[in-house]
Amino acid sequence: MIQKKRYKLTLSYDGTHYSGWQVQSNGISIQSLVQKSLETALRHPIDLTGSGRTDAGVHARGQTAHFDTSASFPLPRLLLSLNALLPPDIRVLRIDEVSPTFHARYTATGKTYHYHLHLDRIADPFTLPYCFHVYDRLTLEDLRRATPLFLGTRDFTSFANEAHRGSASHDPIRTLRRFDVVEQPGGLRLELEADGFLYKMVRNLVGTLLEVARGKIAPADVEAIFAARDRRRAGPAVPPHALFLMQVNY
Amino acid sequence: MIQKKRYKLTLSYDGTHYSGWQVQSNGISIQSLVQKSLETALRHPIDLTGSGRTDAGVHARGQTAHFDTSASFPLPRLLLSLNALLPPDIRVLRIDEVSPTFHARYTATGKTYHYHLHLDRIADPFTLPYCFHVYDRLTLEDLRRATPLFLGTRDFTSFANEAHRGSASHDPIRTLRRFDVVEQPGGLRLELEADGFLYKMVRNLVGTLLEVARGKIAPADVEAIFAARDRRRAGPAVPPHALFLMQVNY
Repeated sequence: MIQKKRYKLTLSYDGTHYSGWQVQSNGISIQSLVQKSLETALRHPIDLTGSGRTDAGVHARGQTAHFDTSASFPLPRLLLSLNALLPPDIRVLRIDEVSPTFHARYTATGKTYHYHLHLDRIADPFTLPYCFHVYDRLTLEDLRRATPLFLGTRDFTSFANEAHRGSASHDPIRTLRRFDVVEQPGGLRLELEADGFLYKMVRNLVGTLLEVARGKIAPADVEAIFAARDRRRAGPAVPPHALFLMQVNY
Repeated sequence: MIQKKRYKLTLSYDGTHYSGWQVQSNGISIQSLVQKSLETALRHPIDLTGSGRTDAGVHARGQTAHFDTSASFPLPRLLLSLNALLPPDIRVLRIDEVSPTFHARYTATGKTYHYHLHLDRIADPFTLPYCFHVYDRLTLEDLRRATPLFLGTRDFTSFANEAHRGSASHDPIRTLRRFDVVEQPGGLRLELEADGFLYKMVRNLVGTLLEVARGKIAPADVEAIFAARDRRRAGPAVPPHALFLMQVNY
């Protein structure tokens, strides 16, 4: 009997030109390109499982995925082959052999996302495509003071869009461990870390935080938004092009 | 009589999608878009003079240009208008009123260019479009030791392509003041500073330096390449997408 082994991929990609991680009817998905490259390199069908999907236009610097194969090959050579087969805006950073009990999605213990806000009126043409350029006047003290209001183990239903996956609704309880505001040239970076995120949760949390910083939602109303369990009560989602999946923890 | 005033623009642009700074028959030039935006904002024809051209695909973080106008306007508002009129990959960073004797090209005393080399086999998808990915094995000690061979006040004819401007040949004497090698994540940045650069001179100098680091040109041959005053003796030009005009000094 041939022994199958499990491998973990760590990936970085510029999501600008893709329909997202997961296979979609419209547009090209990152998962499908990585899977095809593996199939070309290993010469057999591959079932590639990601840590979760990223939406159209969202980027990654540390997306993870796993696959099984009984093929034997030197890992450094497979790494080079995959990167030669993939377009330059998708890169495999690492391949590691992992235990057969490892699962990119189910054994993940947490994820970190970054969201980039550009606040200066004049922007750098090289970072602008990866930032949300906010022209409104924001009260940054309110923004900084409001982030702790979202932390903790909570029902995040008000900050989750319905997924179009046809599956039954998921458990909406998540633990947001970190929601930090970090200054960077031209603006701010929001760093969010949780045990997991519901569909569009990062973009809805950032959008709601911006409404607080614009004075349109009072910090005292955040509790009521959580309690309502109603997506319509929270702020609008911010656009995808400024969002980066930075790390998946196991 | 209406008093004309002279203004200096400082510009940053991603040259990926343009045919270069100067108006060309094929493709859209950066100069033409900036000039049109000025004409829209100021409502009269504008003659925009750049510090010099950048080739198709070359980027800038500190290109300069000047124009004259008798229109009166608040500079901060014009800055915002121009950036609203321009595509996001071209940004006006500053507008300053300058003396009528200022000339973007003729009063410039020097320029600084950066050239980015990616040397690791695995590249970051976000910086890769702005680096030259060198797959050959380079001897970095040779590269570092060779840069001083190009410094000084020299006849750079061997490192200049013929310009297709129909004008008479220029003085080929330039003073290369700095040719530094700076480590950065994934590779190296070459920093070149001179009183001026001949056509494609930066890309030809970097291409020749790479031939030294590949062992194809001996450091001792650099003097003979200068003396030959023959473009064919030097190394091939490196591609434009890794070149940035960083600063024009006055």
